[in-house]
Formats: sequence, C-alpha cells, structure tokens
Amino acid sequence: MRAFNFAAGPAMLPLEVLDQVRAELTDWRGSGSSVMEISHRSNAFLEVAEAAERDLRALLGIPTDYRVLFMQGGARAQFAAVPLNLAGPEACVDYLNTGVWSKLALAEAERYCRVNVAADESASLYCTVPQPDDLQLTAGAAYVHYTPNETIGGVEFPYTPATPGTPLVADMSSTLLSRPFDVTRCGLIYASAQKNIGPAGLTVVIVRDELLGRARPGTPGVWNYQALAQQNSMVNTPPTFAWYVAGLVFKWLQGQGGLAAMAERNRAKAQLLYASIDASGFYRNTVARHCRSWMNVPFKLADPALDAAFVHAAEAAGLTQLRGHRLVGGMRASLYNAVPLAAVQALTAFMQEFERRHG
Amino acid sequence: MRAFNFAAGPAMLPLEVLDQVRAELTDWRGSGSSVMEISHRSNAFLEVAEAAERDLRALLGIPTDYRVLFMQGGARAQFAAVPLNLAGPEACVDYLNTGVWSKLALAEAERYCRVNVAADESASLYCTVPQPDDLQLTAGAAYVHYTPNETIGGVEFPYTPATPGTPLVADMSSTLLSRPFDVTRCGLIYASAQKNIGPAGLTVVIVRDELLGRARPGTPGVWNYQALAQQNSMVNTPPTFAWYVAGLVFKWLQGQGGLAAMAERNRAKAQLLYASIDASGFYRNTVARHCRSWMNVPFKLADPALDAAFVHAAEAAGLTQLRGHRLVGGMRASLYNAVPLAAVQALTAFMQEFERRHG
Repeated sequence: MRAFNFAAGPAMLPLEVLDQVRAELTDWRGSGSSVMEISHRSNAFLEVAEAAERDLRALLGIPTDYRVLFMQGGARAQFAAVPLNLAGPEACVDYLNTGVWSKLALAEAERYCRVNVAADESASLYCTVPQPDDLQLTAGAAYVHYTPNETIGGVEFPYTPATPGTPLVADMSSTLLSRPFDVTRCGLIYASAQKNIGPAGLTVVIVRDELLGRARPGTPGVWNYQALAQQNSMVNTPPTFAWYVAGLVFKWLQGQGGLAAMAERNRAKAQLLYASIDASGFYRNTVARHCRSWMNVPFKLADPALDAAFVHAAEAAGLTQLRGHRLVGGMRASLYNAVPLAAVQALTAFMQEFERRHG
Repeated sequence: MRAFNFAAGPAMLPLEVLDQVRAELTDWRGSGSSVMEISHRSNAFLEVAEAAERDLRALLGIPTDYRVLFMQGGARAQFAAVPLNLAGPEACVDYLNTGVWSKLALAEAERYCRVNVAADESASLYCTVPQPDDLQLTAGAAYVHYTPNETIGGVEFPYTPATPGTPLVADMSSTLLSRPFDVTRCGLIYASAQKNIGPAGLTVVIVRDELLGRARPGTPGVWNYQALAQQNSMVNTPPTFAWYVAGLVFKWLQGQGGLAAMAERNRAKAQLLYASIDASGFYRNTVARHCRSWMNVPFKLADPALDAAFVHAAEAAGLTQLRGHRLVGGMRASLYNAVPLAAVQALTAFMQEFERRHG
C-alpha cells in the first residue's frame, strides 16, 4: 500500500510513472534491456532525451532562444556553475538572501565573485520576502540571483523581481512545474529534479542563448553551459535513468492538464493545510501570509515534546516523512505535484485528531 | 526476453539486481514509497548508503585509512575535481597518455595545473601501454594520473605503475570490481558507475585520508573531498536511486564469490573472444597482446562496408550494442561483470557464422 508521502526531496513521484518504470524495467520497448543499460548516444535514448526536452518546453512555454540543459550535481552544483559561467572574477553579482538555500548559494558565489546582498531577510528569521521596491540592486551586476521558494523556511516570492538590464537567475528547484511561470523573466533557471521533476541526480537548467559563451577558463568542462548546449547535454554520460523518469513525469503532467491545472490543485492543497493550521491553537506557521509557500509547509506543535509522538502516529496512519528539516525542527509537509489532495485531507484530519487527543 | 548486451556504458546490469529493483519499486521495504521517494537523511536510506560502502570495502579490501565517497558527475567531473583537490595552481602533475580518456583527463587538468606528459602512446595509435621503466615522472609532482583501462582503445595496464613518494591517481571507471586490486597502490581511485557498479549518475571515489584537506579555494563545494568525507557524501542530495542500485550490485558480487571469482570469469570471457578474433582472418584486434583489455574488446571487420550488416544481424540474434565508439568505428564488445559467459559464446558463434557467410 502506498503512503501519503510528504518528503521535501527526494520526494513523492506519481504512481502512474512508477508503474510504467516497473513494467518496462528489464525489457524497455522490446529492447531486451533496461533503459538503464543502453548507450546514451543510441537512437533509442536520444528519442527519450529529445522527447523530455520537447515536453518540458511545451509545459513551460520555453521560447526558442532558451536552451534546456540536463546536468548532474543538484542545485548545489549550480551554486558554483552559475558564477563560473556568467561572471568574471572581477564581476559583482547581486543575491537576495531569503533563506537557507539562498544563503548557501550566496556563500558559494563568494568563492568566485564580489557578492552584493541585495536583500537580507535573516533579521526577520526568513519569515517574509523583501518588497519589490526594497531590492538594493547593483548597476552593472553580472546577474541577480534569487530563490523563488525556500524549502526550509517555507517562504516564497509572490512576484518575480524586476531587474532591468541585468539577467535574473532563479533557483526554482522546489517550485518549477508547480504552476505556470514566465520563463522570459529570467536569464537562467535551474532546478534539481528531486521535487517536481524526477529522481535525485538530475538538474534542469534553462538558459537564454545570449548568456552562453561567458564561462571563465577555470570552469569545469562538465559544467560549461555552452559546451553542454552544443552537445545536447552529452559532454559526458548523463544520468540516463533519471532523465527517462523526468520524461515520464512531463508526460504525466501533460495528462493532468498541464501547469495551469497543477496550479489549481497545488493552491487548493496549500490553502487547505494553512487554513487548518491557522484555525488551530495547537499548530503554528509563522510565515507572512502573502508569501507562504505552496510547496513546503513548515509548522510547529505548541509543545515540541510532542514532536516525536506526532511523527510516530502520523507514520502509523500512513502519513510519512513529516519531520521538519534538521536545522529548524518541528514538522514540514511538502506538497509537490505528485502529492494528491487526498493526502492533505488525510493529514489535516489526522492533525485535528492529534490535537483533540493532545491539545 | 533479455538481450546479450555488450554496451560500453551505460552497460548491462545483473538481472537479479533489476528483478529486485522491480519487485520493490513502488513499496520499498514496506515503507509505502519507492526508494527514490525517501529522504537521503532518513535512517532507512542511511542504512542503504552505509551497507553499500561496507560491502564495497569488503569486496576491494579497502583499508581504514581510505575514505569512500559517492559523488555525481561521472569520471569527467573527476578530471577537474582531482587537480582542484590535490594540486595547487603552481603544482606540476604527471599524466600517462594511453588513450582517449587519459588524454581528456590530461586536457582538463591543464586548466588547473602544469601537466607533464609522463608517457605518450599516441604515436602507437594507443595500441599498447608504456613499459614500467619508460615513465618520465617529475620529482615533486603533486600526483601521477593514469587510466588502467581505456574503453575506446581496449588497452589496459598489466601492471600498476610505481610512483615512489608521489600519490598515484587511477581512473578505474571501466575496470574497478572486475578483479581484485590492491587499493593501497593508489592515493586516489575514481570510477563512474555505469560499467561495473550501477546506473549512470554515480561516481565512486576512494581516497587516502592524508590527501584530504588540500583543495584549493576555488574548488566547488560539492566536489570538495574533505567536505564530502566529513559529511558522508551528503554535502547535498546524492543520487539515491543509483546509490541503492550500486549497493545491490555489491551484494550480487558477493553472492558470485567476490572479485577473485569475477576475475576468473572475466579472464575466460576475454580469452574466448580474443582467441576467436585471432583465429579468424576476418576480424582483427590491433592491441598488443600483453595489454589487451578484459573489459572492452574493439575489433574491425576485414571490410568496413559490412559493419552495418554485422550490427543489424547481431541485433536480430539478440546481441546488442556492438557498434564501435564513434571516434574509431568498427565493433566493440564490452564484457563487464554482468555480461555472462553465455553472451560471449553466443557472440563468437555468431561471428563465425557471419564470417562464413560474408568472408
């Protein structure tokens, strides 16, 4: 029996996708081999790779002057690859610090560039995002980096920052594909797969053509965006299985009605959980309401001594991976695309019952 | 029906491993989730990670003063990570150029260090390896790099180079686990998974403790060996599914009798194929006999115009992925651990029949 899985990543995948993976695991398309066992340069795999890109482009409406790259290393590798590819050693780059992930991105960029912190929400304990007019952008910066959704703080930008004349770079690991997004607002988007795309080990990069060719000489060959674009992300052997699963997820999203349909569902799931938390005196989410994440809902129990009992009882009820991130404690329910509304309904019912018993 | 799959990588996996993956794909160990869908920091996954390391250590006899890292990016990422971690910008490093892969490793290192080519077999068209006494090693080099087995040339070292006082670094992507190997001869070993370990997207690094802590400041955080060692390869989300499959492969190897047993089988497989080629006037392998690869057997047909017909007929007979690397053409049969002797028997029988018809 399948659990209602609230993992923050690696996260739940659609059962239909897993069922297809299972059905063809040892004999893929009549080849007598698993999709894991074939050359990434075979025509059969190139079809998988191209279909995945085509479907991702269709889902997000990615224009032809953007390239889609399939890389390894997670978002954290991009924390280095972005400055290496887009900024010279003397360049200044702007970072918006709105949580643990943007701060880590910023710290990695400091190895390579002068970093200007264009907004800093650490004083608010990362419970909100800056107002659009409060960004302290640097004229002539190589790029502006932000994290539209913070998985640990559970805070997300309700707007896309305007950065006239400067490319905007977005770490969309935890929000890409959760709703429609205007790609053209960004020069570069990256996302690790293990939330809304597929298994861990794959990273999607969407980059405007004109930003290619700027890599500094010390950029590792496997991270050079231009080389990757020229070689269809096959500078070296890509993570073929993860790429294949991502392609199945993209097909599944199309079957679900695309990103507009996902947005409606994701909004409904988040609203249900936040409403349940806010109606309670027992559970608490401290994020400012206008920038609460649809994808990651951290919450605390009135008495942290009950945390272990909560997790234990939830798991017994088939509600798994609710423990909060080790940096902040408490609980966290991640509500990525593959998590059904029924999971949130079961969670809120469980929470009410737990409160009734322990509140 | 399963094919006899001679892919050079991503390569054949043991059917027993794939069957287990399939059996537990949507409900792993009664968790109600796939192993792809659980946190890499959960106790359940940490058990997988630790068991994989333990079993790999047992198989190879890795001493306690070596660390085992599970990384992303393939061997090609290590081409950059090795100089970044082990050599300063002013350092000199020695590279043995014995084929396409060692040459690519060397070229990547040149971004970061002064590279001395301590042996160069390009003039021999990579059909042999240097004699032990012919290595032109640099006194005080930060390390010596070599590629024990070249997948494209099909050449392998019948000996481990002696580099007194200088750490030896080995790209063992295509030979690790194919037979016993004395890890202590090397300071660092790396191997991409998609030959003898598991699915593409995982890289194993085995590094002597004393080589940690030398990374230059520009080393990307996800590639810093010391940080990876300190955080059990979880600086960021690792490729959990590939790691899990690798663990199953390690268990499978133990069940097969370990690396001594694999060596016997791999030797027999290679001997059968080379003997069949050498006995023929129709097929040809030009590698010097003392350094022919057990893992990758490239061969040419007397008439290259027959290549397409050979591949086509082989596939019809269930012998797949025999086309040679695009750089060299011809054919290549890779005989990694998961390829059974029966596959080589079927291949040699097919080759004889093809020669009879077309020779």
